[in-house]
Amino acid sequence: MKRIEKVADMAKTSRILAAEGKSIGFVPTMGYLHDGHLALVREAGKENDVVIMSIFVNPAQFGPGEDFESYPRDLERDAALAEKAGVDILFHPSPEEMYPEESDIRILPGRQADVLCGASRPGHFDGVLKVLTKLFHLTRPERAYFGQKDAQQLAIIETFVRNYNFPLEIRRVATVREEDGLAKSSRNVRLTPEERKEAPAIYAALKDGARMLRESGDPELVLGMVRNSLGRIPDAEADYAEILDYPSLRPLSAESGEAIIAAAVRFSGARLIDNILVPLEGKTS
Amino acid sequence: MKRIEKVADMAKTSRILAAEGKSIGFVPTMGYLHDGHLALVREAGKENDVVIMSIFVNPAQFGPGEDFESYPRDLERDAALAEKAGVDILFHPSPEEMYPEESDIRILPGRQADVLCGASRPGHFDGVLKVLTKLFHLTRPERAYFGQKDAQQLAIIETFVRNYNFPLEIRRVATVREEDGLAKSSRNVRLTPEERKEAPAIYAALKDGARMLRESGDPELVLGMVRNSLGRIPDAEADYAEILDYPSLRPLSAESGEAIIAAAVRFSGARLIDNILVPLEGKTS
Repeated sequence: MKRIEKVADMAKTSRILAAEGKSIGFVPTMGYLHDGHLALVREAGKENDVVIMSIFVNPAQFGPGEDFESYPRDLERDAALAEKAGVDILFHPSPEEMYPEESDIRILPGRQADVLCGASRPGHFDGVLKVLTKLFHLTRPERAYFGQKDAQQLAIIETFVRNYNFPLEIRRVATVREEDGLAKSSRNVRLTPEERKEAPAIYAALKDGARMLRESGDPELVLGMVRNSLGRIPDAEADYAEILDYPSLRPLSAESGEAIIAAAVRFSGARLIDNILVPLEGKTS
Repeated sequence: MKRIEKVADMAKTSRILAAEGKSIGFVPTMGYLHDGHLALVREAGKENDVVIMSIFVNPAQFGPGEDFESYPRDLERDAALAEKAGVDILFHPSPEEMYPEESDIRILPGRQADVLCGASRPGHFDGVLKVLTKLFHLTRPERAYFGQKDAQQLAIIETFVRNYNFPLEIRRVATVREEDGLAKSSRNVRLTPEERKEAPAIYAALKDGARMLRESGDPELVLGMVRNSLGRIPDAEADYAEILDYPSLRPLSAESGEAIIAAAVRFSGARLIDNILVPLEGKTS
């Protein structure tokens, strides 16, 4: 596995690969790798000649008071995991490499970013689109891999790539979970032992909600139940719970083919998100 | 010369060229070609294996009440000129091809767009960055060619390409002028015969300004003279005249290496822009 730290080296390497006609699968991450990331790498390995992973804790997508400083990092452990999973090139630039000058050109993600995490983390998706545009240009992938766990990010990126004609496909990869159902996340290590025991209740609430939505079909009723369940987690405070059309993230309508039930929950050391997709009857597509 | 109308065909063609290791020179235009455009093509032909020109009158960069509808168009004449000048691929999509769905994801150009044309045409450079992002992704150029006549556009694009790591170089090409000094522009055909006779006074004023700036070095004094000269053109109204640092477009300072004297002038049928760059003594670069 080749390791690259410099933007100029990454650009040169991908330029050579592109001119050789090699297909590149790209897995952008913030590091502290878990099985969810490695599932992305495996998918990328199946479909491409070369797999590039980036590890970059992007300051532009953290707001004031968020956990940029305390976000878990362990580059050497990550490099070993990435190599073992089949990454060919690991790109891990410094913030100074990625943002060598103050830039006031912004990408605003539009209405899809007004709900869920976008509502409680203003500017977050601006920062995501900024860094992904840079990373896509630096790595020139034919396909880029994202986990369904970050469902809103995935929906916004799909729209962005389509509207701006990026020459690549976005691949959705299913959320990887612990045996007790908790979605794998780099932030899980920041839970106290007690919180870790409580955290699977998030997915349990979403699963109950999905079952109820398929059975009763009344989103208001279902949402009330989900919020109620999340409210009963002793050490957690629900940030939001919503049921929306996916991937438009608009309110559900008679035309909706798929619903998302999404939640964010704050424990003392970490804010966790999870979601579940529910195909709807009367699906039009 | 190959002609392409469909976005999917353009993407496929550039993908194949990229995988063959061919270097692409890209010349984006709004058509109604003149010698300025053809100079861009000649430069692109010298440095690249393949020259792609786009012709697209981009609705996203025209404001309400601007001349989108009346902007001059003549595709068959343009195609003949492009082929003769050495264009290999002419991409001329329809607005429906380029914008098949309403998109609310925006690129905001920042402070460089707050002055000059950006001040009098709000949203104009948002539209420019949107269409160029799309065109760069569709044509995958190694180099893209822009005329110095659109100096603010060029400065903003240079910043954008650098800040967002587009894998391409921006090439500046000198303004091409009529024998009497008027900058070539597709909009010149919309001048009345009388206005056409008056229009070279724009460049004359800029040239006088450049000479004075080199001699006296007092930008305020020079700007007063330039505004005075523009004010004496009988059928024109000056939209702006400014002297700024180039390419930052900030106020001139002791560190400025180059100044731009830029003006926009409205005649009855067309708003014309022009500018001149003035290297400054005490240049630090």
